[in-house]
Amino acid sequence: MQLGLVGLGKMGFNMRERLRRAGHEVVGYDRNPDVSDSSSLADMVGKLGAPRIVWVMVPAGGPTRQTIAELCELLEAGDLVIDGGNSRFTDDRANAAELGKKGIGYLDCGVSGGVWGLQNGYGLMVGGDAALVHRAMPIFDALRPEGPREEGFAHAGDIGAGHFAKMVHNGIEYGLMQAYAEGFELLSAADFVRDVPGVLKAWTRGTVVRSWLLDLLVKALEDDPELERLTGWVEDSGEGRWTVEEAINHAVPVPVISAALFARFASRQEDSPAMKAVAALRNQFGGHAVHRAGPSSGTGSTHH
Amino acid sequence: MQLGLVGLGKMGFNMRERLRRAGHEVVGYDRNPDVSDSSSLADMVGKLGAPRIVWVMVPAGGPTRQTIAELCELLEAGDLVIDGGNSRFTDDRANAAELGKKGIGYLDCGVSGGVWGLQNGYGLMVGGDAALVHRAMPIFDALRPEGPREEGFAHAGDIGAGHFAKMVHNGIEYGLMQAYAEGFELLSAADFVRDVPGVLKAWTRGTVVRSWLLDLLVKALEDDPELERLTGWVEDSGEGRWTVEEAINHAVPVPVISAALFARFASRQEDSPAMKAVAALRNQFGGHAVHRAGPSSGTGSTHH
Amino acid sequence: MQLGLVGLGKMGFNMRERLRRAGHEVVGYDRNPDVSDSSSLADMVGKLGAPRIVWVMVPAGGPTRQTIAELCELLEAGDLVIDGGNSRFTDDRANAAELGKKGIGYLDCGVSGGVWGLQNGYGLMVGGDAALVHRAMPIFDALRPEGPREEGFAHAGDIGAGHFAKMVHNGIEYGLMQAYAEGFELLSAADFVRDVPGVLKAWTRGTVVRSWLLDLLVKALEDDPELERLTGWVEDSGEGRWTVEEAINHAVPVPVISAALFARFASRQEDSPAMKAVAALRNQFGGHAVHRAGPSSGTGSTHH
Amino acid sequence: MQLGLVGLGKMGFNMRERLRRAGHEVVGYDRNPDVSDSSSLADMVGKLGAPRIVWVMVPAGGPTRQTIAELCELLEAGDLVIDGGNSRFTDDRANAAELGKKGIGYLDCGVSGGVWGLQNGYGLMVGGDAALVHRAMPIFDALRPEGPREEGFAHAGDIGAGHFAKMVHNGIEYGLMQAYAEGFELLSAADFVRDVPGVLKAWTRGTVVRSWLLDLLVKALEDDPELERLTGWVEDSGEGRWTVEEAINHAVPVPVISAALFARFASRQEDSPAMKAVAALRNQFGGHAVHRAGPSSGTGSTHH
Repeated sequence: MQLGLVGLGKMGFNMRERLRRAGHEVVGYDRNPDVSDSSSLADMVGKLGAPRIVWVMVPAGGPTRQTIAELCELLEAGDLVIDGGNSRFTDDRANAAELGKKGIGYLDCGVSGGVWGLQNGYGLMVGGDAALVHRAMPIFDALRPEGPREEGFAHAGDIGAGHFAKMVHNGIEYGLMQAYAEGFELLSAADFVRDVPGVLKAWTRGTVVRSWLLDLLVKALEDDPELERLTGWVEDSGEGRWTVEEAINHAVPVPVISAALFARFASRQEDSPAMKAVAALRNQFGGHAVHRAGPSSGTGSTHH
Repeated sequence: MQLGLVGLGKMGFNMRERLRRAGHEVVGYDRNPDVSDSSSLADMVGKLGAPRIVWVMVPAGGPTRQTIAELCELLEAGDLVIDGGNSRFTDDRANAAELGKKGIGYLDCGVSGGVWGLQNGYGLMVGGDAALVHRAMPIFDALRPEGPREEGFAHAGDIGAGHFAKMVHNGIEYGLMQAYAEGFELLSAADFVRDVPGVLKAWTRGTVVRSWLLDLLVKALEDDPELERLTGWVEDSGEGRWTVEEAINHAVPVPVISAALFARFASRQEDSPAMKAVAALRNQFGGHAVHRAGPSSGTGSTHH
Repeated sequence: MQLGLVGLGKMGFNMRERLRRAGHEVVGYDRNPDVSDSSSLADMVGKLGAPRIVWVMVPAGGPTRQTIAELCELLEAGDLVIDGGNSRFTDDRANAAELGKKGIGYLDCGVSGGVWGLQNGYGLMVGGDAALVHRAMPIFDALRPEGPREEGFAHAGDIGAGHFAKMVHNGIEYGLMQAYAEGFELLSAADFVRDVPGVLKAWTRGTVVRSWLLDLLVKALEDDPELERLTGWVEDSGEGRWTVEEAINHAVPVPVISAALFARFASRQEDSPAMKAVAALRNQFGGHAVHRAGPSSGTGSTHH
Repeated sequence: MQLGLVGLGKMGFNMRERLRRAGHEVVGYDRNPDVSDSSSLADMVGKLGAPRIVWVMVPAGGPTRQTIAELCELLEAGDLVIDGGNSRFTDDRANAAELGKKGIGYLDCGVSGGVWGLQNGYGLMVGGDAALVHRAMPIFDALRPEGPREEGFAHAGDIGAGHFAKMVHNGIEYGLMQAYAEGFELLSAADFVRDVPGVLKAWTRGTVVRSWLLDLLVKALEDDPELERLTGWVEDSGEGRWTVEEAINHAVPVPVISAALFARFASRQEDSPAMKAVAALRNQFGGHAVHRAGPSSGTGSTHH
């Protein structure tokens, strides 16, 4: 099958490779000429025979919106655009409406798998019209992991459902990672536990907590058993935030996912204004010790 | 190898079977004569040749403590007791000290795997003396999953480290389950996501969140796609509680594991006294609507 | 001073009374003719001498937006609109811009105090231009509690800052209420604490936790010592949600405020889909007991 | 009334003064001779006429237990010991039993008020026998704030109930402080809010969130409007920990109080082992940027 693929970064580059290995003809476009198969979006579109399928794999937000706007100009009725980036699901409805005016189809596709996807395949969640999903199925089949289709692919629902599902996937991922991380810290805090990496490795088969994330943590600890070579500074992508926001919109309690998100926020603070306020309060009512900023430190007491 | 095994419930029964399949000679004892190989603890001990190994697999707390006290009477110097139950790690030091007075060795062993362990093997975390661990290794090797030893077995550390590691394992498990559960609820709340079980199934290969627990959730949803046949009432075993208590002892923040624990507490409440207090407060300051207990309901307003 | 006041519900009605007691001339308008001083918005505006001040005190969202749009038609350059409702601060910039095109000034004012405000005065937080704040100060002085101005009034900052401050005020309020509520539940759970209402009342003077909310909780418990007459069903207004959303926008960790919000979400659920998923998982891996929906209940066991 | 008072630190010293101002005769004992009225515990006891009342106000745990053990030797049947320190309520039963063997009475009394108690009085929560409470009432009346007795004093329940109530009081206090602190941080993060201290001060009258803690935060911000002179390092006393532990014992969900406790734990960490584990995981699956410990920093990307 023939496919245009916009965006050949870490994800798109590997996806092109996986699609080609499966026998598909991919015309890639990227602003970086070293990896691009075409000189421009227009050039890429020109190299595709109608009806075309164009997969967009560029950063969410502005870049994706701009790419889709340009494709809306370049493509024609009967073509199909698939947004495989990490777009917010609310963008999908606008995209579908805009492209739909010209008779261009649209699917949103959440893609999971990271740098391991070339080898393992990508988990895919798609939103949109069933006929369009059917049409693009050879592409989805090439990208998803081997094995039964339904174990690596879902037609999640209407437009936006693919990105919504991917958003929730990432929210869950935040919670899973934090759960392992808290356990790791607690094991590390008990001095009579003498082989923390060994304990985690022993969980990789047979136990209730075995998972791919656990395998990765074991791998990280094999490289650096006490994680001395990095700091506890953790970025968050938009999707954890969106998950909590959508939970709020739907009045769904998400104490675990939000706790994981807030732990990341806190990890990036030099000092916590909130905890300064708590320190100031304790000092006010109890004369409790505070840690003064700068060279000297306070004194205090413990009863109130 | 010869082994005494006390406790032939859901776990012990399967473990005996797995050990026998591996060629070990197991003399089991259970209060239930239908499954027991011996008529009493003393009878079981009498059937074992010195130096003996006795594996205790009875409910944590009183039953385990009593069993070990009785074994302390029945066994002799050079024998070895392994507590494979879900005992609190603080019990292990007392057990080791008590048995040690008579020259009887002691190991604590956390065992994970549930009803699937017969088939898949059990993840094992052991605390205690290295020479004793070495001595019991044929037993551990038979119980653990096939594959490299270190992927299903760890000598975690000193006495208590095995149960401590299992406790942390269970704490993590609480967090993992709650993360999936929150994601499931959020997916279910979005009406344009039309195939929630399908989305979760699509995560089972290739994605970042794939795990054994996810496989089980997919399986549960295949049986009952909207989980209509059960209620959201969730018991907690002691180990989640202990994990949070140990985190507090070590000043380790565990927002995710504690949130998962508290969600279970809340799941079992008919009504929440705390939320009654919040409702009462809102009614006081804002004249906000409250839901009156009984047939009639209140009225109110929204501004304060 | 002369003032138009739109919205004579629970809040606006009392505010009119407080303003009149302070000697101001208030022309109120409400759709309910029983309380209104004028037959229409236009009638109200017609009764005011230029330059006019109109205070809007109607429900946030659509009603406020519509009222302000109508006032934009009816008022003229030099007039001033103050939105005292619980509007989202993001609405204020649009309102200010729209009114500003016609030369009409705009202030946003967060108002706290609930049904007690008539007697105690209202806490006021204002956003907008300093000259406009100065012009409306007699109104603010009449509404705020007696005592030093700065203990019941703040010019919080630019347009939107008043409603933002009120939003944060409400977010804090959620956290405070939940903290008392958790403590109340824990006290109630300990059977050797025989006088829970008495304990809370004993905190109302001298202690670190004394507050107006505590006074209200004591009052509620005097009416209904075990809160038997209401259920733990708690609504949330928009402002708690907005607080968490803004915290996310600013990467500020708000574990307490979000926990309080989620507790309200959970309080309104008949059953928790998330906890059903956890129950289903436990049943899968451990054969643990689940509570079946309907007449019969499951059985199970506790080890995994 | 005559009273022995053991422990003349920040709390005991002020309490002696408040008791004397009320006309009571206090014989104090402290290891520090500069403040002590007697040369030893025995000397103090010797100066009191039977039946004696001795108030213990020394640090919780070992010092209190030792003081009570010594008093048990020195006192005689009919005397009364009151532990006013921050002891864990579980100690009270042991104390009462031990003293009871000799016919010495025991009350536990939670005391709130901090350094402000001399002036404002102390909130008191007492556990134990009603007749003993009645006997010591003149002391309690002198210590508690002026006003109705029940607004600063409660006979909370049986032995231990006083310290349990104080423990819960402190747990609530953690939650209240954290709620204000989160709000303070969020206000500070919004650049269009130009007068954060002013906003908090405006809340001190008339609003729903007014409280003594808010007054103290306003005071702290008057001294140091951006809290630049201290760091966000916050100690926790035992009582927050005990509150969460007791909540766990009673299966009471305490998401807010525990979140406040964990925020304190986190505030004292140089770096978070848990967040290192999360950073390591993100690096593994997505090639995401990590912050390397030491001079150089990593690189990475954002899609997975």
